[in-house]
This record gives sequence, C-alpha cells and structure tokens, in this order.
Amino acid sequence: MAVSGGRRARDVVLGVLASGRGTNLQAIIDATISRQIPARLAVVLSDREDAKALERAREAGIEALHIPPGRFKTKLEPEIELKYAQALKDRNVELVLLAGFMRVLHGNFLSAFHNRIMNIHPSLLPSFPGLKAQTQAWEYGVKIAGCSVHLVNDMVDGGPIILQAAVPVTEDDTPDTLADRILKEEHRCYVEAVRLYCEGRLRLDGRRVRVLADHGADPAGGGG
Amino acid sequence: MAVSGGRRARDVVLGVLASGRGTNLQAIIDATISRQIPARLAVVLSDREDAKALERAREAGIEALHIPPGRFKTKLEPEIELKYAQALKDRNVELVLLAGFMRVLHGNFLSAFHNRIMNIHPSLLPSFPGLKAQTQAWEYGVKIAGCSVHLVNDMVDGGPIILQAAVPVTEDDTPDTLADRILKEEHRCYVEAVRLYCEGRLRLDGRRVRVLADHGADPAGGGG
Repeated sequence: MAVSGGRRARDVVLGVLASGRGTNLQAIIDATISRQIPARLAVVLSDREDAKALERAREAGIEALHIPPGRFKTKLEPEIELKYAQALKDRNVELVLLAGFMRVLHGNFLSAFHNRIMNIHPSLLPSFPGLKAQTQAWEYGVKIAGCSVHLVNDMVDGGPIILQAAVPVTEDDTPDTLADRILKEEHRCYVEAVRLYCEGRLRLDGRRVRVLADHGADPAGGGG
Repeated sequence: MAVSGGRRARDVVLGVLASGRGTNLQAIIDATISRQIPARLAVVLSDREDAKALERAREAGIEALHIPPGRFKTKLEPEIELKYAQALKDRNVELVLLAGFMRVLHGNFLSAFHNRIMNIHPSLLPSFPGLKAQTQAWEYGVKIAGCSVHLVNDMVDGGPIILQAAVPVTEDDTPDTLADRILKEEHRCYVEAVRLYCEGRLRLDGRRVRVLADHGADPAGGGG
C-alpha cells in the first residue's frame, strides 16, 4: 500500500501540530527553506497560546494558529479535534506532522488523515512509549537509546516505523544530556522521513514501512 | 554495588549453560584461548544431549555435561535445577553464562549466583523479550535491531543491561539475514561483557550497570 504517491511536480503541503519549544518544527522549516524537502509548510497549529513553536512559525512567515484544546488534559475535545482537522483541510494539508504535540489524537482526526500523520518519538520504539521517554531509557539503564519517526495510528507511539536512529548512552550521561543528543538525531531523522514521504518513496507492507530506492531522481542532476 | 571485584591476579572461573548450536559458547571459548578475556571455562552444561554446544566444549578440552531437564518444557525441574547449581559450585564457577539456554532459571539458582549470571539476547531490550526476538523485531518493522548482554534476574530478559549493540535493518532483510547479522554482534558483545566482568569493571547502581574506565591496566603494558 502506498503511503505517498510517486514523485511530484509540485510541493507537498505540510501542517504541523506543536505544543512546545518547536525545535523539530524549526528543523522542518529550515529544510523546506533549503529545499532539502520538496514541501511547503502551510500552517502550524498549537493547543498552547504561549508555545514557542507559534513564534517560530510567525518568524518564518508561516500562518500560526492557537486553537484552545477544551476541557481535557491529554486530548482535544471532540468538536475541537474536528476544528483542527478542518483547519488543516482548509489549507489543503496533505501530510500532518506532530512536533511535540502533547495530546493524543482520536478516530475522526486519524481517519481524516489516514497514514498521513507522522510523529517523532525520543526512543527506539517499541521501547519506552509515552512521556519522558529519554528519562525512562536512562533509568532502565539501556546502553543504546535513540529516536523513531512513525506513522500515527490509534496506539500511542505504536504506529508503523519509518526511520530510527541509535544514540549510545555514555557513562557520564544524565537524562538531560542524553535527551539533548537524541534531539539532534530527531531533527535529522524527521527531516529525512518527511523528505522520503514527499519523494513518494514510502510503502506500507502490513505494519512494515518499505523505503524505495531513489530511482525517481532526475537523471539530469536536478534531484536532491 | 560491585558486580565484579577489582582486577584479579588469577583467572575468573566460568560455567556455560547451553541448549543449541553454541556459537556464542564458541566465541567465549575462543576469547579465553586468545586471552582476550582473563578467564578459564570450567564446564559446559546442557539440557539437550545432542546440543552442538557440548561437542564444541569437548573439542576444546572442556568438561561437557548433559543433565536431563526433567518433565517441564520451559524450565528445569526444581531438584534438577539444584543439580545444575551444584555442578557449577563443585567446579568453583564464579560467573555463569547462558548461551542459548532455552529454560528459565528460578529463585534458588538465581540466589546461588546472585548478579553472577549473564545472558545474551538478540534484541535491544526492553523491546522484544522472549523467543524469536529477531523475527518479532522484523515483523514489528523496526529500523534498528540489535542485541543485549544483561544480568539475569527473575524477570525474563528483564535484568540490568551490561552492553548493547545496534544493528540496522536493511530493506532486503529477512528474519534470517537479520538474525545472522545480529549474531555477529552477539559474539562481540558477549566477549566484551565477560571481559569487563573479569576485569572487575562492572558496578550496579540501582538497575543501571556502570562500566568503570580501565584504570587497572598494567602501566608496564601488560594489560589487555
């Protein structure tokens, strides 16, 4: 099953959902500007008015919307989730990127963007799903930590994995220094995963994501 | 808490429990012969009379004992587990290595060799504990697989992790080709973990294993 279609003549339209600092958002913004990924970032939505992510979007000239999440702590109110989906559809968003978005998305949103929602998680899934994955990994005592880009489905951090990167845990690491090193790999992996999507090189085979070779590269040398 | 004491003047005495091919056993045998690890392998015990591991031991001039496991499939009969422990104690075994031993060990055996039993597992724990870890990982669709050397406690594949190695999953991997690549890393990691133990460089801090720097190396250059 195709996750993303063949190589396109035009840019893929991206939307980002973010709650926090937005460093992964910044990596995506930078990669669209540098044309490392053939995409246009149409809108950034946040449940938090004070999210640094909204500021980063505005600074880059990208529409930034705060949509209050409603009365729940870990999810959006159902009618509000519809608002998020509609805001993305209104801007013709094709691929939704979660970048530190701290709320779980549910059925209607997921089916509106079936296999078109990506998330980045700071662990080598399926180890350490959920919150504070880097601290979980440090406390467990793993010697190899890492990050995972995956498609979002109805299992928290349980969707098909697109890319992973390993990050060794060093003797003098604290949860914070480990998280900092993982974050650098998150930026690299997330950009790479979005690039693969935009180049039409991802296929789903059951729950396994196949990455096609870059045969679509322009033989005249115009490819990335 | 010290797992292994300071650098010793004499070899550490090892015992191995194995059920199968014994390729990890062979890696340990080779490393004792080459003096990569300062240890002597005193005995290999197996629940299977036809285990290739027993043959490998005999070929290397190491005592090889088949002790029938009794009536259970996934564990030893309690009295027989005591026999295993006694056979190791009788030979002054200090560190017990599980090398493809297909039965879960229980309380009395574990307390007889508390924090002195190591296992090698073909996944990046805590992902994919249990049987056929490589196939589990392949089917889940991880992009980074690997192996883990850990201390054995009463949680299956859940003890403190000593070393891990990451193994990328390639597009053309099958569970078998992946398992073969992981196995090479198992051999390397297991030897390295046993060496660290024998050099007195492992400390337990809660469930985290600290690896001490090699300050004990002979300044005259006699160290490994």
